Amino acid sequence: MKNNLFITFEGIDGSGKTTQALLLKEHFESKGYKVHLTREPGGTDVGNKIREILLNPAFSINYWTEAFLYLASRVENTINIIKKLKENYVVICERYADSTLAYQGYGRNLPLELLVEMNQIATFGLKPNLTILIDLDPELALRRKKSFDRIERENIEFYYKVRKGYLEIAKKEKERFIIIPGDLSKGEIFKRIVEEIERKNLGEVQK
Amino acid sequence: MKNNLFITFEGIDGSGKTTQALLLKEHFESKGYKVHLTREPGGTDVGNKIREILLNPAFSINYWTEAFLYLASRVENTINIIKKLKENYVVICERYADSTLAYQGYGRNLPLELLVEMNQIATFGLKPNLTILIDLDPELALRRKKSFDRIERENIEFYYKVRKGYLEIAKKEKERFIIIPGDLSKGEIFKRIVEEIERKNLGEVQK
Repeated sequence: MKNNLFITFEGIDGSGKTTQALLLKEHFESKGYKVHLTREPGGTDVGNKIREILLNPAFSINYWTEAFLYLASRVENTINIIKKLKENYVVICERYADSTLAYQGYGRNLPLELLVEMNQIATFGLKPNLTILIDLDPELALRRKKSFDRIERENIEFYYKVRKGYLEIAKKEKERFIIIPGDLSKGEIFKRIVEEIERKNLGEVQK
Repeated sequence: MKNNLFITFEGIDGSGKTTQALLLKEHFESKGYKVHLTREPGGTDVGNKIREILLNPAFSINYWTEAFLYLASRVENTINIIKKLKENYVVICERYADSTLAYQGYGRNLPLELLVEMNQIATFGLKPNLTILIDLDPELALRRKKSFDRIERENIEFYYKVRKGYLEIAKKEKERFIIIPGDLSKGEIFKRIVEEIERKNLGEVQK
């Protein structure tokens, strides 16, 4: 019996994280768990203000500004996540520290070691028990999205670097990650996620 | 003949930075210089959005969130400062990297070495030619201020730590700093600032 369950979803824009996070929330709720579903950037009042800046297509933001804003949002959200975990919530978060490594590190070429160090500060060392990486070809992902915010306007090469980054991060932390092919149907993706959670014995935690 | 002149004002809230920065702007303009007057947090569209978050009394923000937000604002402002210096503007900035060390480092007890490293990133290594520290007893400073935003609600002990921090930073970089007693009259403070600028031979730069 584990005390806490903290699950994150990662993947490039358009990979289907939001849909699957919501399905997983319903799954745990149907089993009688309290679930806290959150996302980055955002998840708190301050985080939502930061999100508005980051996703505003009118702003052309330096890569480091971007990194610092994500980190600021992460601090506030992590404080709340820690609180919810203490109250025995299952916490599901769409994007977390790995996004900074994949996007700002692999995608923008900012130095990874520094980003790792800053993530450590911004998360107070809190790591997810499970990270679900929905891996999808950027061409497919972008075709799915109807609206484009600032980040999604990026060129396709950027997303290929981010995808590659995610796969490298997942390879380094095999225990924490599961990788699901994002070109499967919604139902099939969700089925695999639940199977992996059962297999990893994460399905039963304190209520 | 120097090519660039970048002057920052530092000091606790209520020390008179805004007034003196404006007087100094007028001083340089009257001598025929183009002057770019800016401030932190703020100074750019993104920075002003960040300023709104930082100074909103409704938000109770973690110290690291605060630090990351100031750094994000600094990146954007520094990019603009570098641009203005290249165009031979005299740049005057109210608060800069030293504020992070004094407030988040000495005031909040966040690790100084890390903040120095992050400042280096956020400023691209740009240091002011001159930093004017207006040193004032926190009791006097707070009595002067009529409105109180989030930061200014802090207790007086916090401001004593910040003041002490400023004085230690100034001691380490004697060449860059001038310290002016903030309990002098506005006119006397300004007279001393101009004298120091003349004495340091910073009064004549490329127009």
